[in-house]
Amino acid sequence: MNDYLRIPGLIDIHVHLRDPGQTDKEDFNTGTAAALKGGITTIFDMPNNLEPVFSVEKLSEKSKIVSNKALCDYGFFFGSDGENLAEFEKAAGKTIGLKLYLSDTTGKYTVTDESQIYKIFKKWTKKKPVVVHAENEKVGLAIKIAYDCGNILHITHITGENELAQIMDAKKMGMKISSDATPHHLFLSLEDKERLGKYAEVKPPLVSKRNQAYLWNHISDIDCIASDHAPHMKKEKESEISYYGMPGLETMLPLLITAFHDGKLTFEDIIRMTSHNPSKIFNLKRDDSSYAEINSEEEYLIENETLFTKCKWSPFAGWYVKGKIKRVFLRGTRVYEDGKILVRPGFGKNIK
Amino acid sequence: MNDYLRIPGLIDIHVHLRDPGQTDKEDFNTGTAAALKGGITTIFDMPNNLEPVFSVEKLSEKSKIVSNKALCDYGFFFGSDGENLAEFEKAAGKTIGLKLYLSDTTGKYTVTDESQIYKIFKKWTKKKPVVVHAENEKVGLAIKIAYDCGNILHITHITGENELAQIMDAKKMGMKISSDATPHHLFLSLEDKERLGKYAEVKPPLVSKRNQAYLWNHISDIDCIASDHAPHMKKEKESEISYYGMPGLETMLPLLITAFHDGKLTFEDIIRMTSHNPSKIFNLKRDDSSYAEINSEEEYLIENETLFTKCKWSPFAGWYVKGKIKRVFLRGTRVYEDGKILVRPGFGKNIK
Repeated sequence: MNDYLRIPGLIDIHVHLRDPGQTDKEDFNTGTAAALKGGITTIFDMPNNLEPVFSVEKLSEKSKIVSNKALCDYGFFFGSDGENLAEFEKAAGKTIGLKLYLSDTTGKYTVTDESQIYKIFKKWTKKKPVVVHAENEKVGLAIKIAYDCGNILHITHITGENELAQIMDAKKMGMKISSDATPHHLFLSLEDKERLGKYAEVKPPLVSKRNQAYLWNHISDIDCIASDHAPHMKKEKESEISYYGMPGLETMLPLLITAFHDGKLTFEDIIRMTSHNPSKIFNLKRDDSSYAEINSEEEYLIENETLFTKCKWSPFAGWYVKGKIKRVFLRGTRVYEDGKILVRPGFGKNIK
Repeated sequence: MNDYLRIPGLIDIHVHLRDPGQTDKEDFNTGTAAALKGGITTIFDMPNNLEPVFSVEKLSEKSKIVSNKALCDYGFFFGSDGENLAEFEKAAGKTIGLKLYLSDTTGKYTVTDESQIYKIFKKWTKKKPVVVHAENEKVGLAIKIAYDCGNILHITHITGENELAQIMDAKKMGMKISSDATPHHLFLSLEDKERLGKYAEVKPPLVSKRNQAYLWNHISDIDCIASDHAPHMKKEKESEISYYGMPGLETMLPLLITAFHDGKLTFEDIIRMTSHNPSKIFNLKRDDSSYAEINSEEEYLIENETLFTKCKWSPFAGWYVKGKIKRVFLRGTRVYEDGKILVRPGFGKNIK
């Protein structure tokens, strides 16, 4: 029964589903289940698996492993350490973009040599975005190189003026450039660190209230919201080693609807940032048959116990949100309703 | 492109499309075009045509005349002056309910004799609603008779506490009873009379700000919003004779979304009152493929010149509303987009 407000199914352009390699943290089944529960009908999975997706062979292997597990639609990013340029041409056809780490991140994937970055940008197709993790001055570097080489550039998980001001300038110059911010940077700040302890550890780190206010004040200049869903097990987060990242698929849309009630953004902003722009930037074909039905007035408590993500914790546990996802449709099929997934693993398709 | 907020296509349970008989005021083509422009995918047309729909023959005649003109889906009410009980059984199968005038209205259709009203309620099917125009103490009369006879009762265009309090009491007793209010009673008041002059004339009449506030304060107790779209030509409205009624199909949803922005009701209220309850009360089969896509933030000026209704005026002309209907889908087909009807007359179907 057609009784709810509907918004286009969300496209989350930045998630880490850990499959294969770290399926103790998450796998493609639990991760895509969490996506659907969160109103997300398409996810883009990052290449930094335990064995990173730097070759077409690894990509095919991953594709084979996850295809029988996927519940929502998905696309893959290709990765690069600068040593795999020969793979680019083949990989481009099978992926939605290239993911590049210019700033420090988990693992050994950061590319720091400028001439190597040039080679990567030059070699990658000019028809699909290069998504970069770039903080502060690295944003300027990415812009300079993408401008010189003619790439489509997307700066992921920006955290404030340092990044956005440079992106805005490049936009004014006519560059094909876009950005996203994460729910944890928009809804958590340094003030939450005491409460969350090591659970607050994430890259880029949580920001000050002042920086966070900057993001909200410039929400109309930010192109996308992406979860950067990066689950780690509780025992990992609580250990002495730092495991950076937090889950976010299930909580992103309820948090955004709550922000709508608080007057921080409009429904049109939500749609623009979670489906219109992602599909425009990544050149996706879309129809009208993938959508989420919500009760925008229903309040509920976020609880670890009811999460679908394998890691079973959320930095937002204990928060009341206003905006409940009731049903989700993917390509015309009812795939989620009232806490239950209604399709079998494998229903989700690779969009490329 | 799936870029807008969607709400279920509205079901307007009270309209007067004047066809056949007074097609100078409106016809089924212009009226259903106005409906689609207003996000309304189903209308229920009233029986008080110039020659009222008191017989199955008249009903068939009307059905034949309008079927090639309809753009949105529609249902017909049957009418009664108490002299046509023999027609009821056949008529019930072809209509969505019985419309009865207990209070003064335009034309000669008011039934005042209590025993005759009893006969009508007794004879009408207990499976389809009797919709009554009943003001003040006439509400109590309708409730008493419907209770005695076991009818489903709907009180249309209520204007305040006089009606709603009685309806609430009957509901508490377990009666199948419901109500609707019109946009003109919710958004216009006695204070608008000076501005509107004879254009303000409507039955029931516009109410005081106090009564209007009562309606808004009890919005969660009102089951439906219905336009009571009742067009008359400008020259008629401006003449010395009183032509009661005003158009409302195109302005209802934008006004409701504007009221949402003003914090007067929620999107869920809008959906509840314009599609969930209408379909529940009138037992309609529904699917998910009829809906309106809106930009809830887009402001625009209501202007007489751009109205689809043949009468080309609105009591809300000159008002800025916030909430624009961008596209409308009916049974999966795009039927309206950006000011244009995209299907041919006859696309609309009789739902019975």
